[in-house]
Amino acid sequence: MKQYEKTLKKDYLFNGIVVNLRRDQAELPDGRQAVREVVEHPGGVGIALEDEEGKFFMVTQYRYAQERVMLEFPAGKKERGEDPFMTAQREIAEETGYEGRDFYYLGKIVPTPAYDTEVIDLYYAKTGRFVGVNFDDDENIEMIRMTLDEIIDAIMKGEIDDAKTTSMAFLIRESKARGLI
Amino acid sequence: MKQYEKTLKKDYLFNGIVVNLRRDQAELPDGRQAVREVVEHPGGVGIALEDEEGKFFMVTQYRYAQERVMLEFPAGKKERGEDPFMTAQREIAEETGYEGRDFYYLGKIVPTPAYDTEVIDLYYAKTGRFVGVNFDDDENIEMIRMTLDEIIDAIMKGEIDDAKTTSMAFLIRESKARGLI
Repeated sequence: MKQYEKTLKKDYLFNGIVVNLRRDQAELPDGRQAVREVVEHPGGVGIALEDEEGKFFMVTQYRYAQERVMLEFPAGKKERGEDPFMTAQREIAEETGYEGRDFYYLGKIVPTPAYDTEVIDLYYAKTGRFVGVNFDDDENIEMIRMTLDEIIDAIMKGEIDDAKTTSMAFLIRESKARGLI
Repeated sequence: MKQYEKTLKKDYLFNGIVVNLRRDQAELPDGRQAVREVVEHPGGVGIALEDEEGKFFMVTQYRYAQERVMLEFPAGKKERGEDPFMTAQREIAEETGYEGRDFYYLGKIVPTPAYDTEVIDLYYAKTGRFVGVNFDDDENIEMIRMTLDEIIDAIMKGEIDDAKTTSMAFLIRESKARGLI
């Protein structure tokens, strides 16, 4: 049976600052109908910035929805329709104070395919010129530097559990093993 | 500055089948207030089931919010409050037709920490007894089997981009390299 669901009706229930929420009516391949709840998000980027000592910039911040502080690669939300590479260049300079150079695209991940439109584009870069940090107004971020081995050990111990950070750490190691970066 | 945000008020805007949506008022450490949009989700599991030939069961299904078919490890949503190991045992049998044995906990990932409560618990298991598939009523799933190397190659080519699948594939390889599974 063909894997496709046709949208019959879209109902916007909420238009927010970060997300919109829809409840759609969809038609399945066998003709039956189903309700589909969809969270709309403009998408984001994750950026792994490696310094000259082989250490990566990592951020800790309070994640309100998870009710705890998490340790992650720097990330940022796209403006609607923005080219993710522009977001990556802007966010990494704002959060670390360094411009990136030699950007490499690690690929993308879909964090929650079941109900969310979000896609996260993942980048690797080396530190370039120092330009000074410039946090968003309501960001309260602390920065530490870790080697890739330290990051992967922290993942294996369960101390890092952010999906993009886990994906990025292993994608970087695999890309290095394949001579891509 | 302490990394903590205190909830001042929770407003439920939507209570759905898959998600709830809240808009909270939070107090930041410096005393200012901020709006926090929160998607509530009961959480889910991902299960990598390896057969006797070293191949993993993978599913393709139409992901409505992403408007395309995606290739992923089998997964399922928890009932509210359900022990994720129970979900994993149930879902893997329903989707592949095989019970799992020798379950190993790979860890958890938080797919979207910025605005979503969802946590995904990740399991590895070997194929046990065949009990027959039993899909949910509105699931339209196709099954293929792939080796771990094939899965990782597909990730590196961008053919697989589901965050839990990317995380799980590399966590399995790392766990095997460390002699954990």
